[in-house]
Amino acid sequence: MVEHTVKAFDTDIGRLRGLISQMGGMAEAAIANAILALQRSDLVLAEEVRAGDKAVDALEAEVERLSVRIIALRAPMANDLREVVAALKIANVVERIADYAKNIAKRVPLIESEDRIEPISVLPAMAKMASAMVREALDAFAARDPAKALEVCASDSALDDFYDSIFRTLVTYMVENPKTIGQVAHLLFVAKNLERIGDHATNVAEMVYFAATGTRMGERDRGRTQD
Amino acid sequence: MVEHTVKAFDTDIGRLRGLISQMGGMAEAAIANAILALQRSDLVLAEEVRAGDKAVDALEAEVERLSVRIIALRAPMANDLREVVAALKIANVVERIADYAKNIAKRVPLIESEDRIEPISVLPAMAKMASAMVREALDAFAARDPAKALEVCASDSALDDFYDSIFRTLVTYMVENPKTIGQVAHLLFVAKNLERIGDHATNVAEMVYFAATGTRMGERDRGRTQD
Repeated sequence: MVEHTVKAFDTDIGRLRGLISQMGGMAEAAIANAILALQRSDLVLAEEVRAGDKAVDALEAEVERLSVRIIALRAPMANDLREVVAALKIANVVERIADYAKNIAKRVPLIESEDRIEPISVLPAMAKMASAMVREALDAFAARDPAKALEVCASDSALDDFYDSIFRTLVTYMVENPKTIGQVAHLLFVAKNLERIGDHATNVAEMVYFAATGTRMGERDRGRTQD
Repeated sequence: MVEHTVKAFDTDIGRLRGLISQMGGMAEAAIANAILALQRSDLVLAEEVRAGDKAVDALEAEVERLSVRIIALRAPMANDLREVVAALKIANVVERIADYAKNIAKRVPLIESEDRIEPISVLPAMAKMASAMVREALDAFAARDPAKALEVCASDSALDDFYDSIFRTLVTYMVENPKTIGQVAHLLFVAKNLERIGDHATNVAEMVYFAATGTRMGERDRGRTQD
């Protein structure tokens, strides 16, 4: 009987993990496509990213239903409960990450212009860095690997520095090209969205660390303090 | 026995509601103080808002622990379960609202300047509108009032219009005062944070509606589509 329950719990948890890794893949693709749409002023691709966000929302709702059912039916204790609650929270964060990608996509039509806005070119590298953090955080979750989770947190300060540098670049560009201020203001938000994606990947990593070890990551482990 | 369990459940739910309304009060105060700190360049008050956010986070963690315990111990069904899950999610959203207030406070030292940046004056009215939405959404939650929840959603499009108008005002100001671009860029983010607070109040209202009625709010009820 106990074995049967344990097996059922493992199946449920496996299902949860599968759903979250599916969500993570969708969020990564959304980030990449949103930035591609921005670079190419591709309104069709931007609209696809927007529309695709509903699928991520649906998966999050599925994770929520399944987590609540597991808690209510199997009344898991200690480690197992921590794992289910982590899955519920991580799904919520991944949904927010996908939301940031959607917000980037929504700016594509606002930035469109006959003249190419030069500083767009600095964003794809930042997007890659943010997206890699998301993937690594979810890999850490899949592998229950607290050491990998710590690495994700360490890369966040590099992403923050990247953001600060892009912020200054964009402001300088605005000063020198006042006609573009309206469009470049949207790029400021895009850069900020990427920086927030990194913060959320860090959040996921912190939850993975806690679920795996039962202790919170120390302030020192996390590098610079997060927003 | 059944009566005993029902009573225990009611006590638990009452406790959850109390914690969330406490969080809501703190989030409202944080919004008001962050904007006041911005208006007055008051670095001490800004730092208080930043530091105070930890208390909101602690309350959210408390709501999470209590909700999970209720689900595991009392295995509530249907309406009751929907209520507990709504409380868990609403606490998460209120924590995010308080985070936006903290983010506004963090910009105060970045905007400080000998010359008063004129367009700061348009922000307090927007902050009041956003803060009122938060209060009304939480009142709707406390009263389990789906009609009130619908009203919150209706006000969100007014807040979005306010944001659009402030965005244009700030961009025009930047064009005319290129020396202030660095500081005014931070005000763009402040306005965006207020707009997001309104989106989150709308989210809370949607959850209240669902918890109270068991059906999702229709696209039409919500007015303009949210981010």
